[in-house]
Amino acid sequence: MFKKILIANRGEIALRIIRACKELGIKTVAVYSEIDRDALHVHMADEAICIGPGNSSKSYLNMNNIISATWVTSADAIHPGYGFLSESPTFARACEEQEIKLIGPKEEHIRKMGNKSEARKTMIAAGVPVVPGSEGDTKDANEAFELADKIGYPVIIKAVSGGGGRGMRIVYDKEVFIKNFQMAKSEAAIAFNDDAMYIEKYIEEPRHIEFQILADEYGNTIHLGERDCSIQRRNQKMIEEAPCSIMDTSLREKMGEMALKAAKAVGYVSAGTIEFLLDKHNNFYFIEMNTRIQVEHPVTEWITNIDLIKEQIKIAAGEKINFNQQDIKINGHAIECRINAEDIHHNFRPSPGTIEEYFVPGGNGVRIDSHIYSGYKIPPTYDSMIAKLIVWGRDRNEAINRMKRVLDEIIITGIHTNIDFHREILDNEKFLKNKINTAFIATEMIKEND
Amino acid sequence: MFKKILIANRGEIALRIIRACKELGIKTVAVYSEIDRDALHVHMADEAICIGPGNSSKSYLNMNNIISATWVTSADAIHPGYGFLSESPTFARACEEQEIKLIGPKEEHIRKMGNKSEARKTMIAAGVPVVPGSEGDTKDANEAFELADKIGYPVIIKAVSGGGGRGMRIVYDKEVFIKNFQMAKSEAAIAFNDDAMYIEKYIEEPRHIEFQILADEYGNTIHLGERDCSIQRRNQKMIEEAPCSIMDTSLREKMGEMALKAAKAVGYVSAGTIEFLLDKHNNFYFIEMNTRIQVEHPVTEWITNIDLIKEQIKIAAGEKINFNQQDIKINGHAIECRINAEDIHHNFRPSPGTIEEYFVPGGNGVRIDSHIYSGYKIPPTYDSMIAKLIVWGRDRNEAINRMKRVLDEIIITGIHTNIDFHREILDNEKFLKNKINTAFIATEMIKEND
Repeated sequence: MFKKILIANRGEIALRIIRACKELGIKTVAVYSEIDRDALHVHMADEAICIGPGNSSKSYLNMNNIISATWVTSADAIHPGYGFLSESPTFARACEEQEIKLIGPKEEHIRKMGNKSEARKTMIAAGVPVVPGSEGDTKDANEAFELADKIGYPVIIKAVSGGGGRGMRIVYDKEVFIKNFQMAKSEAAIAFNDDAMYIEKYIEEPRHIEFQILADEYGNTIHLGERDCSIQRRNQKMIEEAPCSIMDTSLREKMGEMALKAAKAVGYVSAGTIEFLLDKHNNFYFIEMNTRIQVEHPVTEWITNIDLIKEQIKIAAGEKINFNQQDIKINGHAIECRINAEDIHHNFRPSPGTIEEYFVPGGNGVRIDSHIYSGYKIPPTYDSMIAKLIVWGRDRNEAINRMKRVLDEIIITGIHTNIDFHREILDNEKFLKNKINTAFIATEMIKEND
Repeated sequence: MFKKILIANRGEIALRIIRACKELGIKTVAVYSEIDRDALHVHMADEAICIGPGNSSKSYLNMNNIISATWVTSADAIHPGYGFLSESPTFARACEEQEIKLIGPKEEHIRKMGNKSEARKTMIAAGVPVVPGSEGDTKDANEAFELADKIGYPVIIKAVSGGGGRGMRIVYDKEVFIKNFQMAKSEAAIAFNDDAMYIEKYIEEPRHIEFQILADEYGNTIHLGERDCSIQRRNQKMIEEAPCSIMDTSLREKMGEMALKAAKAVGYVSAGTIEFLLDKHNNFYFIEMNTRIQVEHPVTEWITNIDLIKEQIKIAAGEKINFNQQDIKINGHAIECRINAEDIHHNFRPSPGTIEEYFVPGGNGVRIDSHIYSGYKIPPTYDSMIAKLIVWGRDRNEAINRMKRVLDEIIITGIHTNIDFHREILDNEKFLKNKINTAFIATEMIKEND
């Protein structure tokens, strides 16, 4: 086992990793930028080293300084957390060259899964369903028509150079395909001076469903069930749940098997996530793999009783996973709300500043992962997430009622937060009935359209 | 279901009950004494009523004022928490007379179990093992000798008027019984001017093992496994664990069955606890029943995933328990440390005062039940417990390492606490090896003997 781990990150995930290390008896090194001197991860680690100025590119993204800090402190491994260098193949290779163990995947895994078109090809070859679509572009209506027929309706026609909905058409019926294709193509020609088009399956009311994977060096690849992360604002997840309570056992098994196939296709080792879209007909499609720990990992931890960070560390240290797929039992329901320092009344702009009062909710079934404290000054430089509220309940209903209670209890003054926005989501009838998809916030939440 | 519950308590247990009510959609009324105006339970409840001055006997023990507050606020039930009026048969009867539902047992259950000698008789009649001993006193060595023979060695000889170890002998061997009896008797005669003696089985290295019971009005009585509360200082529990990890399934079943027998013997309804002593030979003896929720209930909640306060409320509202004994699965290991405002370097004297800094530990597997906040003034009037730290781990070892991490993380300044004392216990070799009994703190902890 490692003796000392350097954590190449900040904020709550740095604390999360330090806590796991402490419980495993591993010493920790925090790195920090000049404006993070008073950050909690600096105080909580056994050692701390300043790696540069506030600007991330000069500190948390500064590979040389981070590797130097690792040498200076004789740390034998680096945990990159999420964001920053966690999915950088260059950093993974630099660590390999310096013989520092990176707690995460190998360079080649990051490369293979980081390149979307290569990942898509790999998945097709492995038999994992991807969103059906044209491999290249076309300008020919008849060629497009034939492809649409193969894909199956509804399809979406998009301009290769498109954006903002122009040169785009959703077609439900083959009778009107040619007409719509030509209209979209004309629009594209005018708007973008480029009438190259492509066609994709249109995913109806998609949920974002992702499977947590753990894989060791000995060929053991296990999934820990799914998370439903459909509550997103502009592609940023806000609320995550586990499990997805509309899924039945057979669908979970099918998707889980595909997730394992996806991970095995690249010989993946470490913790990772296979992301799918699940449409309203229960068809699902691989969209991408995240080759790192994710923000929302705690909901999976709670319903499986597996500590993902500890497992990730043990796998990196060369240990075998000491449980198997059959041992994974889904227990109850967990929900996470991401609390951000942002002003929901002003287009969710970041709201850095000094936390005055901070009351931490507690009691049964509540977990708080946060790096803030009363008096902490949130810098404007980094991500605006300041806390993760995680609750557990025997079922989704209990978890929701508990989260409402927690959102009522938490007090953060001195800055703006999105706490009220979370309250509104948890009061929404469609959310309560679990009738959600990735468009939920855009279509359901009034504030978003204010 | 109840519409509004009045909580006749203060501190963390008042918060615990308010939280459960919120999650169940039940309105809450807090009551408070004049010095508790700024207490959290006052702020967190939907309504709050002052019921008298700081002195408990005039406020939290003032039945008339509490019942008046219930009428004034139209609450339809009272939750008494633990301590204060929670085991008062008079209060239970007053509630019955006023047609207010008391969330707890009926007057007769409290009376039957509250009187130690009656409880002992009831248990003997029900076939529940009690500590064998003389029913009355004796001055006759031969009579005592015969009794000792029946009880089985070792036995303890005690002076009826005794105390402080005088007139007391532990005898392991029948050959020396008569001699010891006469010596103890002479000592008692001199020390207490009373040479009446009694004899009891001497329980070797006893653990305090208690079983959590839930019983509804329809004859369903279920136990939720045991807690090991052997770490006590002067009969005050300090650390509680669930399960007791030296116990095997067959012993758990045997003790669980006896616990059910004990509860059924008085027709018990509500949440309750059957306390046993378990000696080093795995013999166990009923000592008493607590007819209320206990401080240490969270460790059971975590390993069974049952919310005891919610169950208690539902049972009081006339609901059936909707699970059975077979559904209760013990999952992992939970530990609770009671944090008290006391000065461990000055004989654990209470240390009231104002909390300056308060940093709440967080992360995976951590639950905090506490009513303090930064700036809160702990009054000298009530119990010194200010927080319960509860952790969960896959096994005892993980739970201990997590608790150590949590004890390192927590910051409370402005007052003295017993946090360092907990740290010492968790570093003790015998504790780590689970070689503990109720004498652990008295014999193992240096501070105690300073």
